[in-house]
Parts: sequence; structure tokens; C-alpha cells
Amino acid sequence: MKKQNQISEKSYKASGFIGRYQKLVTETVIPWQEKILWDEAPDTEKSHAIANFINAGKVLRGEDVGDGFYGMVFQDSDVAKWIESASFSLMNNPDPELEAELDKVIGYIADAQDKDGYLNTYFTIKDQDKRWTNLHEAHELYVAGHMIEAACAHFEATGKRTLLDVMQKNMECIYDHFITKNNPGVPGHPEIELALMKLYRVTGDKKALELCAHFLNERGQDVDIFIREADNRTWSVWGSNPRDDGDLEYRQCDKPLRELTDATGHAVRAVYLYAGMADYASEVEDNELLSACERLWKNIVGRKMYVTGGIGSTVLGEAFTVDYDLPPDTAYAETCASVGLMFFASRMLENELKGEYADVMERAFYNTVLAGMQLDGKRFFYVNPLEVNPGISGVAATHKHDLPVRPKWYQCACCPPNVARLIESFGKYAYGENESVAFCHMIASGKVGFVNGISLECETDYPHEMNVKYKAAGEGKLAIHIPGWSKEFAVVVNGESVVPELKDGYIYIDINGTSVIEITLDDAPHFVYASNKIPRAAGMVSLRRGPLVYCFEGVDNGSVKTLRIDRNTAPVVSLFSNDLQANTLSVKAKREEESEELYSDVPPAVTECEATAVPYYTWGNRGETEMRVWMK
Amino acid sequence: MKKQNQISEKSYKASGFIGRYQKLVTETVIPWQEKILWDEAPDTEKSHAIANFINAGKVLRGEDVGDGFYGMVFQDSDVAKWIESASFSLMNNPDPELEAELDKVIGYIADAQDKDGYLNTYFTIKDQDKRWTNLHEAHELYVAGHMIEAACAHFEATGKRTLLDVMQKNMECIYDHFITKNNPGVPGHPEIELALMKLYRVTGDKKALELCAHFLNERGQDVDIFIREADNRTWSVWGSNPRDDGDLEYRQCDKPLRELTDATGHAVRAVYLYAGMADYASEVEDNELLSACERLWKNIVGRKMYVTGGIGSTVLGEAFTVDYDLPPDTAYAETCASVGLMFFASRMLENELKGEYADVMERAFYNTVLAGMQLDGKRFFYVNPLEVNPGISGVAATHKHDLPVRPKWYQCACCPPNVARLIESFGKYAYGENESVAFCHMIASGKVGFVNGISLECETDYPHEMNVKYKAAGEGKLAIHIPGWSKEFAVVVNGESVVPELKDGYIYIDINGTSVIEITLDDAPHFVYASNKIPRAAGMVSLRRGPLVYCFEGVDNGSVKTLRIDRNTAPVVSLFSNDLQANTLSVKAKREEESEELYSDVPPAVTECEATAVPYYTWGNRGETEMRVWMK
Repeated sequence: MKKQNQISEKSYKASGFIGRYQKLVTETVIPWQEKILWDEAPDTEKSHAIANFINAGKVLRGEDVGDGFYGMVFQDSDVAKWIESASFSLMNNPDPELEAELDKVIGYIADAQDKDGYLNTYFTIKDQDKRWTNLHEAHELYVAGHMIEAACAHFEATGKRTLLDVMQKNMECIYDHFITKNNPGVPGHPEIELALMKLYRVTGDKKALELCAHFLNERGQDVDIFIREADNRTWSVWGSNPRDDGDLEYRQCDKPLRELTDATGHAVRAVYLYAGMADYASEVEDNELLSACERLWKNIVGRKMYVTGGIGSTVLGEAFTVDYDLPPDTAYAETCASVGLMFFASRMLENELKGEYADVMERAFYNTVLAGMQLDGKRFFYVNPLEVNPGISGVAATHKHDLPVRPKWYQCACCPPNVARLIESFGKYAYGENESVAFCHMIASGKVGFVNGISLECETDYPHEMNVKYKAAGEGKLAIHIPGWSKEFAVVVNGESVVPELKDGYIYIDINGTSVIEITLDDAPHFVYASNKIPRAAGMVSLRRGPLVYCFEGVDNGSVKTLRIDRNTAPVVSLFSNDLQANTLSVKAKREEESEELYSDVPPAVTECEATAVPYYTWGNRGETEMRVWMK
Repeated sequence: MKKQNQISEKSYKASGFIGRYQKLVTETVIPWQEKILWDEAPDTEKSHAIANFINAGKVLRGEDVGDGFYGMVFQDSDVAKWIESASFSLMNNPDPELEAELDKVIGYIADAQDKDGYLNTYFTIKDQDKRWTNLHEAHELYVAGHMIEAACAHFEATGKRTLLDVMQKNMECIYDHFITKNNPGVPGHPEIELALMKLYRVTGDKKALELCAHFLNERGQDVDIFIREADNRTWSVWGSNPRDDGDLEYRQCDKPLRELTDATGHAVRAVYLYAGMADYASEVEDNELLSACERLWKNIVGRKMYVTGGIGSTVLGEAFTVDYDLPPDTAYAETCASVGLMFFASRMLENELKGEYADVMERAFYNTVLAGMQLDGKRFFYVNPLEVNPGISGVAATHKHDLPVRPKWYQCACCPPNVARLIESFGKYAYGENESVAFCHMIASGKVGFVNGISLECETDYPHEMNVKYKAAGEGKLAIHIPGWSKEFAVVVNGESVVPELKDGYIYIDINGTSVIEITLDDAPHFVYASNKIPRAAGMVSLRRGPLVYCFEGVDNGSVKTLRIDRNTAPVVSLFSNDLQANTLSVKAKREEESEELYSDVPPAVTECEATAVPYYTWGNRGETEMRVWMK
């Protein structure tokens, strides 16, 4: 049933747009994150994440570290995600110094592992008796999952088993607790499921697959599991109560996973879980689980996704809400959730080769995920609103989370490293392979070597320009996804125009020897209309060119609220902004005179004007200013 | 400095629209509230409010009542507001049975008063040692204020001093605690200030005036007052922390009142406080305090008021937020806050005869206040949104408070009795008087006798029709407010057309003997444009006819989200709805086809249609349905 696999990041050498982003992450983000983890970054939130590992090692050697833990209960995962990013970076750009740094940090991690394989600095330093007593809140399995992912990437990058062995042993410790000893429990924050699938693929260890199956099968069977757990303990991390109304749905524990129909609860947990479900379903051909994934997918992308690929629209619990509730100004749309949506989409492509999965990956990546990071790689958004009103956004109690400019770092630093690891492993999402077919899911400039023998070079200025040239060599089939937004496209193979069949969003081209495939996609800017079932976007338009959603900023337009877009004149590409390194769009508009009176019977005077739009991923890079994606 | 006084409710006999509403309150609301207070109403929230007084009396006589208190810490105020409504009702419709019921309840209240004058069932039953130790949360002075208001109304209605004497003694107890004994403290929930002004006017007791001045002068002087109080006690009502960020502004304690510029914090508390400030300022000619009131007024009506006269736009703390943050779908706009805004406006009219105060009273009354009650008087809104989307409103976590239909009663039952007492005392807001002038601030059908000897009969179908006929008799001046929304108007005096000077929104007519004054106001429906400084209403229109703001409901229009109003064709009065007993408006519109796809490059098909609007105060009377005030 598994239709194809992700490629190894090692097989993709990026150039162009993706290459520049990987360079930025390698040269700026990863060193900066490393500084933070070591508490060497000035003027930023304290991390203490590596110190936690060092202190946990000391504790295990019987040393007193006093109050030696600092940070969130899942602080370890910051180190894991940095290791994963750095490992992917090594695949893209070998760097012996970075590799040595990794070895050092991995050494501290190995020291922090208990004899039985247990690894978690929060519990090891603070109270070892509390291990496994609070799956509801304490993220123990989440942290383990991230470290397993890091181990897999580190092994893939370096061939070293140092961290992989640690995490293999940790997996066995978890297996022992939940399966051998049959202790009840499912992850409070899903993540480990997809990590265990990675570990299984790297090591072939059936225990990893079995443990993943266990967590998926148990979830939602005993709906009182967290209540019973809470009754058996006297402590809490955040005082959250599993008896709270909606907690079961919030934690994706209200029914067995194979019965799920609606995406609910904490959005990041949801898509991490669904990615794990889809991954497992493709591995063991579990059609019932796949059907649930398909229903959840349809619910998200058909009713709960912003035009920017953001998901989880409410700050209350960082969660999905009801269908069509997609407010632009109070949006949560966490960067991590869009990263997780890409994970889910990528795993669905393992099951079914449908272009819509690739389309959503692209939508999430080029809009919300990239918007999560400042263009210079130095500041990050956790929350990605589609409308910013200075004086209200980040200020009013209901808008406190919607910051108008990116902060340097967060106390809860999940998003920045998530963006980093996604960018550094972009090849895995852009390209796939099986025995005979090489897949191009997303357009990504650079060179790729597929295990089936096909090699490919992709030349393009995408997403700024819509011409793509592939030079392919080898024997086999090349499957290229034509983005769903490009209703028209032209294909030239070895200089000859061809009209290949579009099958579920892919064109298939036979490769015999060397071929040059040139694809031209629709490069016109378009208005995008939201379903009028979305109360907050009904009757409004946004702009799009290629995969890029655009927005209007005050810095280009003055008051954005007073602009009314003229839908009768097509938008045009106006100029390439050097500041933003991106094309801006121009559209005819009307501007209302600013009205002093709060309410008036007199309509505001209107003048004609041009309005300028910039790609959404570049917003907030030029100081605090008004911003809107959806326009009247 | 005091320009005029409210009339006695006894001097106004309502007819027409106001008369019908007073009848509804007298015949339906007051008996229903009485049943609730006695816990005799079926299928509704338990009140226990009168039982609390009975139990407090027993406690004072040394009887054991066990766990004899039930309800909110301010449960007593429900009884107070019922007494006040019932007393106003007696002025409008003498009713010996109701008067006897009042006597009975007042008897229980008198029994619940301690020897030193202290009166509060929560503290008397639960823990007498805690009296006056938690002004921050426990609403002791708020409850006293409401009971003082009830006492004044009961005395005004019946001439009986039973409750007035109780509350006079209670005021002396408070005076003794805060002034004689010099204990620190200001009300956590302002209310008593305006009540003390009423008591002063009824009794002439300077102590009441002095106590009011004390609370106004002390407020905001010692900004740590609630922190010190919290440090000195070991208990809490709700666990609220005076050290929380924003708590000072939230409680209107961040600076001395004379320095205030922005309306902040809990909206009901704010306008109750400002009403007290304005009342005191007019009494003692305190220009500095009046200037603060003028700034606060300007801030509210210029930047923080919904077109419906709703204020306090966020559920988070039931509070004012920042300027221009007026979301329609997540609005709080508590019914009580609009009642309080009318109090504030009415007190500003004591200081300055400006039409804008009367305009805002009218806006608040005919829209938010009346919307707070179902047309049959049996159900009530606490929260008054300007947009309802079934499936989201009342369901999504951010919209839980925005109910699409009125509940029967609330555990925190402040709003229903507030509407009742406001309607029953409408004459006090509509009419004013001084030695020589009779004031008509709002148009209100019925007969009025002024103390200065002028008598007036007002005949009108207002707010459904815009013709008003006054028959005046006596000697003196009649000042009639021409609503600010009526840019054009015609005046005929004794059959002759006149063009009187409009002075601050009032026309002045000399009365010598008998005169008939006929006023014709603009009866055309109008589009209303919101300031484009309001992000959530910029570029949208609503409809208005006379003082009534209109809205579009799904029950008349199908999907309201898919409608686009054609602003180029004037709206017209379409028919008088028997269901709603109000005029509906019709306006040309375009309807977009419902779109299944969440986002599309293809604009939805559009057809022309007529859209129907109904007065906002009648919304939600025909089942759960979509609703919008602001339209694209």
C-alpha cells in the first residue's frame, strides 16, 4: 500500500529559493539556536536546555545539582529539534565543527540516560518517582519522540549510532513500561507515533512499530484514562483538569482513532497524531485507519484551514474550533501546526498519490511556515494572524497573542526549531521515490539522486517565476506534480510540446537516458475568493500568485482598512522588491477618506488609487504596520 | 451648576410604545422575577435570594441555618433590583397586592440587618468576622448601593420609610466604618456612589453626600489599596489577584478620578462610577470632576461604543478594551452596561444640556437595552452581539458567551432586573425639570406633570412613526430635544409652522396657557457608515430608521453572509411585522451563490435580490438564526 517514500535529505542539493533558505538556516538560525541552548545568546529568553542534560547526568552520578532544572516540562525537545536541524544541515553542508558540537551535546544526552534507558531531564532532576505518572500534562513521550527523530536524522547525516543507540534503548524502556509491564497510558501530547515510525524505518526494529501501533490502538479506547491518572497523583504541571468539559476532544482521546471524523483539540498534537496514523496506515496497509485520516484531512482542508495553510484558529488551547471559524485578526495558526500539517500531508502521499496533499504542503510552506521566520532568520512568529491592526493586535486582551512583529525567541520555543528542521529537510517533502518512479511533489531548485537510479536537476526561480526546467537522467518514470492552482500549464519534453495526462494532479514522463522537461505554470496574479461559509472572509478577496498568498501592509499602502479592492481589474506584478527579495503586486483600489465620527449617515468620500500587495511570508519585516490578507 | 433634575416616576403616565413595555414588565417580568427570588419558578436557575435574607435574620437571632447561603456573593442585589422595579411599577400602576408583597420582603430585609446597621446576607450567614475584609471582590458596597436605590424608589412610590430607614441606618454603619473610624477602602465594584447621591436627594442627609465624596476622592489615590487588603486576608471569593497585570485599570483604581482620560476595565462598574461622578459633580459644582466625566464620555461614545449603544466589547473581564476594538461577533456589550451608560448620560444632562447625552440614552435604550429582553418579557440576553453565526456563536470557545437565543434566567442575574427597573422608570430619563423649564430628552408617549406647573401630553407612535404631538399647559418654557439623527425636522405650534433655534440639540418653546406642538422628524430609513478606524466595521453599512438600528436575520433572508447590500438604492419601509410589532425595512442586495470550495480563484455567481431588515431590539425572537448588523 505504501506508494512511495520520502527521499534521504542527503540526495537533495538545494539551489535557488530553497537553497538560499537552507543557507540562512545553516549560517544564522542553527548557530543562534545553539547559542540559546547554551545560554550564550544576549537579550533573549533563558533556555538552560543543555544545562538540564548536564545536570541530569550529574544527578545520575549521585551529584547534588540543587534546583538544577529550568524551563518548560518539555525543554529537552528544544535540544532534540536543534540536533535534528543541525543533522539535516550536515547533509546539505558538511561541517566538521558542527558535527563535533553535535557529538558533544549527544555525549551529555547519553550521560543523562538512566540505566534502564529512561531519558528526561525534568523528571530525572526534579523527582524520579514521578516518572510516567502524568502523561496528561508532562509531555514525557513527546520529548522522547523528538529525541528519536533527532537520533534518526543524526544517524542519516553522519552514520554515527551514538544518539540512535541511546534512543533505541529509550524506546525499549518505553516498550517495557507500556507493553511488557502493561502499564496503562497514551501520550498526552502525540508526537512519538510518527517518531517511532521513523525509528522503525531506520532500524527495522519491530518493537518500534509495535509500540507505535500500541499507542494508536489504545488511544480513545479508555476515555477515563487521564482522569484515573490524575486521581492517582498528587501533583500537576499546569493544574489542567482532565475532567474539564471538552478535555477528551481537546486531547484527541474521545473515541478510538479509527472512528474519528472531525479534527479537534490542540492543532499541533492533532496533526502530529494524524501524521503518525497515516504513516502507520501506509506501512501495514490499515485501511480503516487510512479512512479516518482521509476524513480528518477533508475536515481540515475543507473547513478548518486558513488560505495561508494555517490551522488551529483559536488561542484558547492553541486549538481547532468549529467548522468555518477562521478569524483573521485573532487567528492562532501556530507555525508548528503548519509544519505538522506538512508532515500529515507528506504521510498521506505515502498512501495515496493525490496532488491535493502536495498542494497543501506547498500552501503551508510558502505562507505560514516561512512567515514564521523573519527574512534575516533572527526573529520568529509563533502565531500567524491574517490581519494586524496596530493598537489592537498584541494589545487588546483578545489579541495579545497576535504580535505585530516577530520576537527574538520564546520561552516555549517550539516553533523556531520546527521551521529550521523543516527547511533543512525540504527535499524530503519535495521529492519522493519508489522502485521505479521518481516523484516531484513540490518544485524545488537543485539536484536530486533517487535510489531507483534516476537523477534530476531542477532549475527555477520558483516561487517568484513559474518556469521550471528539469534535466532528468536514468531509466524509469518521473512523476511531476502540477500545482492545483495552475489551471493551465504547458509541458515541453526535449524541445517538443507534449500534452501529458494529468492523473490525480501528477504528470508521468518516461525517462530513457537524458531528458529535458520544461514546464510553464500560470504566472498571473489571481484574486482568491473565500467560501462564503466562512463568516469572517465571506465576500472578501485575497491575492495569490503561484503558491504565494499576498497581503497588504500599511508601510506600502497607508491605512489598509480604508482600501476597497476593485475586483474588475486584474492585479499585475508591479516590481521586484529588493527589501523583501520578492515580487510585489499592484491592484486597482478605492480609498475611503478616514472618518472621525464613529457612526455617520454620510458615506465616506472615495478616491481611486493603486494598492500594493507583498507575499504573506514577507509580512512584518519592515516594522510594526497594519496588515490584511482578506480585503473588501 | 445642576441644570435640571430627573422627574419623579410618579409624574409620568406612559402610553404607546413605552406604556406597552411598562405593562409587560409589570405583568410578566416583575411577577416572574418575584417567583425566581422565592425559588418558585420552574426550570430555571435557583436563586435563594429571599431565603438568604430570612436565614440571615435567623442567624442574627441566634438560630443555626447551617449552609444557609446560596448564590453569588452579590445575590442580595437581585432582591434590591426587584424591589426597585416593583416600586417604580407601583408608581405607574398602583397594586395593593404587590405593595403588600414588598412589605413582606422588606420585613425580611429589616430582620437581616444587624444592630449596628450592617446588612449583607453573604457575610452575616457565612462569616461575620470577614465583613469589610474583601472590598476587592466581595461586592459589599455594591450590594448596599443597590439596596439604597431600592429604598429610595420604595419611598418615592409608597411614602413608606420602612426600607429607607433600614438603608439610612446601613449608610450610617458604612459611614462609621470608613469615615468615623477611618478604615481604608474603596468599592471593588462601584455603584454605591450614585446610590448615595439618590439617598442624599431623598433624605437631605449630608452624611450620604460626604460618604459619596469620600469614595470618589479616595479612589485611585492609594493604588496599592487592594494589594494591602489581599495581604491582610486569607480568603478569596474568586481567587482574583490585585497584583495581576492591568488590575488597577480594570478596577478604575489606577489614578485619582479627576485625572482619568480613558474608559477602562469592567464596563458596568465604569459607567456606574462615572454616573456617580457626574451626579456628584453637578451637586457640588466640581468642575475638575466634570471635566474628567467629559473626557470619559468622549472616549466612550467616540471610540468604544457599538452602533447599538453597547459598550464593553470583550468577554475577558466584561470590559472595555482599546479604542476602536468593536468586534460584532465576539461582542460582550452587556445589557447592564448600556443601562449604566444611560445612567451616565442622564447625570451628564444634570450638568450640561447637550443633545448628545440624550441621543446616546436613546441609542442605548432602543437597541441594546430592549434587545436584552425577549418581546414576551420571558427571556433575557446578558450579552448582545451584533453578529450571530449558528454553529459558531455560543459554540466556539471564543464565542461561548454570544448566545443565539435568550436564556430564561442567569445564575448571575444582574441584567434582567436592570432592564425591568430601567423600563419602569423610563419617565425619569425621558423627562427632566427645573424651576422654569420642562425638558423632553427622549420622545415618550404619555402624560407628564412637572413640578414647575407645566403639564404635558405626548402623543406618538414613536419609535415606529416619527410624528410627535405635544399638548402643553401651564406657564414656562418647554425644551424639546430633537434627536441628533434627524438632520431635518419640522415644528408646528398651534397650527403655525415655526423655525425654532436649535440650541445644543434642544428647541425651546414658551408655554402660556395651552399649546399644541407638532414635530415631524426624518422618517426615512438611512444607511449608517462606521468609522473606518473600526477594523471590524470599516467599509460596511448598517441600517437605521429613527432611533432604531436594524439587523438582517436568516429567518427573513436565508444565508445573511452571502448578501451584499446595494448602497446606491435607498432602503424603504416594507411592512409592519405582526410577529415583531415593528416596521421591517427592505433594501436592494446581491446574493452570492454558496461556495463549497474553501478557497477558489473563481468568484461566486451573483444574483440580485431584496434583503429584509428588522429592528435590532427584536432579533433572536424567532428561533436560532443568523444575524448581522454590519453588512458588506
